[in-house]
Amino acid sequence: MKDIRRMNFWGWGWADDAEAEDPAADKAMADILAKTYQSGEIKPLSRPKVEEFSLPQARIQPPRQLAEICTQDAQDRIIHSLGKSFPDLAHAAQREIPHVTDMVAYPRHEQDVKDLLDWSGHQNVALIPFGGGSSVCGGVEPAVGDKYEGVLSLDMRRLNKVLEIDEVSRAARIEGGIFGPELEAGLKTHGYTLRHFPQSFEFSTLGGWIATRSGGHYASLYTHIDDLVESMTTVTPAGVMESRRLPGSGAGPSPDRMMMGSEGILGVITQAWMRIQDRPVYKSSIPVLFENYYQAAEAVRALGQAWLFPTNCRLVDAQEAAGAVGGNHAMLILGFESADHPVEAWMDRALELVADFGGLFDRSVLANKESNKEGAAGQWRNAFMQAPYARSRAIACGLIVDTFESAVTWNRFEEFHQGICEGMNKVVREVTGHESKVTCRFTHIYPDGPAPYFTYSGLGTTSGMIDQWREIKAASLELVESLGGTCTHHHAVGRDHRPGYEKQIPSLFQEALQAAKSALDPCGILNPGVLIDPLARKVGQQGSMSRV
Amino acid sequence: MKDIRRMNFWGWGWADDAEAEDPAADKAMADILAKTYQSGEIKPLSRPKVEEFSLPQARIQPPRQLAEICTQDAQDRIIHSLGKSFPDLAHAAQREIPHVTDMVAYPRHEQDVKDLLDWSGHQNVALIPFGGGSSVCGGVEPAVGDKYEGVLSLDMRRLNKVLEIDEVSRAARIEGGIFGPELEAGLKTHGYTLRHFPQSFEFSTLGGWIATRSGGHYASLYTHIDDLVESMTTVTPAGVMESRRLPGSGAGPSPDRMMMGSEGILGVITQAWMRIQDRPVYKSSIPVLFENYYQAAEAVRALGQAWLFPTNCRLVDAQEAAGAVGGNHAMLILGFESADHPVEAWMDRALELVADFGGLFDRSVLANKESNKEGAAGQWRNAFMQAPYARSRAIACGLIVDTFESAVTWNRFEEFHQGICEGMNKVVREVTGHESKVTCRFTHIYPDGPAPYFTYSGLGTTSGMIDQWREIKAASLELVESLGGTCTHHHAVGRDHRPGYEKQIPSLFQEALQAAKSALDPCGILNPGVLIDPLARKVGQQGSMSRV
Repeated sequence: MKDIRRMNFWGWGWADDAEAEDPAADKAMADILAKTYQSGEIKPLSRPKVEEFSLPQARIQPPRQLAEICTQDAQDRIIHSLGKSFPDLAHAAQREIPHVTDMVAYPRHEQDVKDLLDWSGHQNVALIPFGGGSSVCGGVEPAVGDKYEGVLSLDMRRLNKVLEIDEVSRAARIEGGIFGPELEAGLKTHGYTLRHFPQSFEFSTLGGWIATRSGGHYASLYTHIDDLVESMTTVTPAGVMESRRLPGSGAGPSPDRMMMGSEGILGVITQAWMRIQDRPVYKSSIPVLFENYYQAAEAVRALGQAWLFPTNCRLVDAQEAAGAVGGNHAMLILGFESADHPVEAWMDRALELVADFGGLFDRSVLANKESNKEGAAGQWRNAFMQAPYARSRAIACGLIVDTFESAVTWNRFEEFHQGICEGMNKVVREVTGHESKVTCRFTHIYPDGPAPYFTYSGLGTTSGMIDQWREIKAASLELVESLGGTCTHHHAVGRDHRPGYEKQIPSLFQEALQAAKSALDPCGILNPGVLIDPLARKVGQQGSMSRV
Repeated sequence: MKDIRRMNFWGWGWADDAEAEDPAADKAMADILAKTYQSGEIKPLSRPKVEEFSLPQARIQPPRQLAEICTQDAQDRIIHSLGKSFPDLAHAAQREIPHVTDMVAYPRHEQDVKDLLDWSGHQNVALIPFGGGSSVCGGVEPAVGDKYEGVLSLDMRRLNKVLEIDEVSRAARIEGGIFGPELEAGLKTHGYTLRHFPQSFEFSTLGGWIATRSGGHYASLYTHIDDLVESMTTVTPAGVMESRRLPGSGAGPSPDRMMMGSEGILGVITQAWMRIQDRPVYKSSIPVLFENYYQAAEAVRALGQAWLFPTNCRLVDAQEAAGAVGGNHAMLILGFESADHPVEAWMDRALELVADFGGLFDRSVLANKESNKEGAAGQWRNAFMQAPYARSRAIACGLIVDTFESAVTWNRFEEFHQGICEGMNKVVREVTGHESKVTCRFTHIYPDGPAPYFTYSGLGTTSGMIDQWREIKAASLELVESLGGTCTHHHAVGRDHRPGYEKQIPSLFQEALQAAKSALDPCGILNPGVLIDPLARKVGQQGSMSRV
């Protein structure tokens, strides 16, 4: 597939852009970790190469009529068998992929998608929709059980066009396989933006965002992809489902809200009308420091309940902020933006509020329009953007480094935060024998609660780190559940969060969702193992092969 | 049922508060209409009385164990067989109710609801959840087809308590059968408000709002009940479904969003945690006049796309505004409110925007904090609040007076508005032989389009008005559909909007919804005929009668 730029299978980013092998840098990282953890010498794993993997023989063969869009190339199979979760990267580093997809297809248009779904239903092949492959929860992993003849990964990246812009209604019709940068470039030409910037922005797709209910970079108001969808088209095994473009409608339960968050188990999102905006021109941003973390959280609560809707309201705890502010203060990055009007009145009131809770700030930075890219906030921001790239090198040393995110009501936040930090410290210590580091930041705020995002790390062993991670992951899901949080706020459920999801979701809703899936995917071929198990399936009874 | 204050069955409001018989006023109304329409003499129908109705014998009897919460009293049966749609009121005026509920139950608590659902499933009795009974689309009408042994109306008004307030997270746990004024009174004691004021506020319930995706009075942002729900408890025939209190969650498709808009076909909403707010103290409101209606709409579009989020942004066309402003101008009622901060900056920018589109206003009214209750805006507001009460008198004269609401993207608005006005004028003229009056206001605005609300009237005949209305209603649904609008924006689908709903909704979503219903309501007893038809049902196989 000459037009396909391949992802790096063992880390973040593109394959042709991946960090070169650098034994000296690896050794330096190993030495730092060994010193930090007083662990004795660490021998980092070298960068894996495609030829080091012995892949199982593919169990299925491309249908003749679709052969030109299918591949069984080893590198393609490996790329599509892994997301970007800790175990994904650790498996790559260990040269051992537990489940390998048998074939990858790159559909060119909606008809190809239909044909591939038909073929998969007929052949009892599990089909996994694949956007950017940046899932951190096992959402694209071909662990589908033993009831299928094989697994096909459906890579959507060729459906990557901004098809139409309605400048009057501020909406654009966009294909589901488009990556973040392509999408924004397509809108920028006309002066617009979708203004949805998840951390995975560069390597995730519109369809993936909708299927996983992606959360954007902005802290409040219209930041979730859910609210930006005007209508959508989904190809299901039972046919195409297209909702009508409407700014609002109270006609029954929302069809779109059923497909949002369906994580590939109900259909493949081929295009959507998205609500777009003028590009913001008025921007104001300022870091605010707090000595007391829970008082900082109270300040954020006040901001959230004041209906000011800051675009940025990221509270970073003292440990995580230390690299940027070098002290013992929690840092709130507070910002407002608008395409229409100056935001002084908003910022002034927000600063009054944070001052009430002991927030410290230097008003003079407001004069600097690029303040969010400079100083303490800028340093934190750069580290934030680089974090996904830096991870592979640490994992090659056996460092278990991962994140998880949740949301919880304000009345439970303090207990939640303490419980998570203490609980995670304890489990990491028990599992790895080393002290851990757990930090927290808020990604989003709501009037009724924050979405805290935790990062932890603990030194495991290069051979045992996946099992160690599993123990820690199970404990983190139980902690979050018992403390009243959601098992995921915007990372999705995939396969890794299912134990938490099953405790959280009403069992009757699971049954209703299974029933709905049976109507749309009667053979149960779509992304099996994600969210729910399909009900009894009609194996191979579906679809006509006449077209294929 | 001594604790039950009864509704007026032939008009808006309470039975004990209903307008007294006043033949002179009726005659005056008839004379005015006769003169306006040059129709010759009109003989108004007198106010109907319960004893004038001959009701069919009830087909079911209360189960012994639930007898004390069930009634078959004639007035109760009549009240629960009618909503507040045009045909409902016309049927009452004509002393002819096409479908009469067999029994009414007033559950005291969730266990009663469960028992009644169990009993109904076992006996193959259709069960219609009944909140305030203010449906204007046949949502509570016992037209369930001939496959049931009888119909039970489940009146929820005894579940009417504010159970708990979480002042930190700003949320309250509230029972589903509570009416608007009771709910607000319960919150006001603590300084809070839900700030959800649909036009039916006095005579509708929290559960009804959620089940029908009610739209509040406010024009933008968090005004729909959908966004105010934090979590909810629904009793379904298959068991109780309770979602977790979470400020946000991206874990799969939202369970709550499936129940919102389910209009009683999936379960009975017994309670919900609702997002509440501090009571607003900063208010600013001003009427803005426009000579050109479509330029006024452009001003509203600019406001909607500027992310200012006015609490009021009601554009009333010149015909509808004429009573208040006495001229040839469209009137925009523009307002901002906040519990936290003065709203001058917001209002100033909004007035700049409307001025750009030729909006005329007198800034001095901004100094008057009660300006929204006085002057032109206040006059319009009073007429608006009294409108539901005035309707019965006009209907008794054969005046077909009704409203319908929609939403459409901005790029189609002008064509939509012209098409609706011309089309409705034409069909009313054809059906009634008289000229019609069609007016429009915006109830809600979104960045991608407005929600226009149409009122029409045409003189029918006291004996034939229901058939005449049906012809007009069918035409209005077709017009809305063909011009790209939604069949309902916040009035719900019920039975009356089904032809429009079926054209609008993806057929695969209907199938998925039917399948989900089968999982939650296997006997298909819940509100049959609303939204979708149940799939093949498991008649009488469900539930244990041991408790009953």
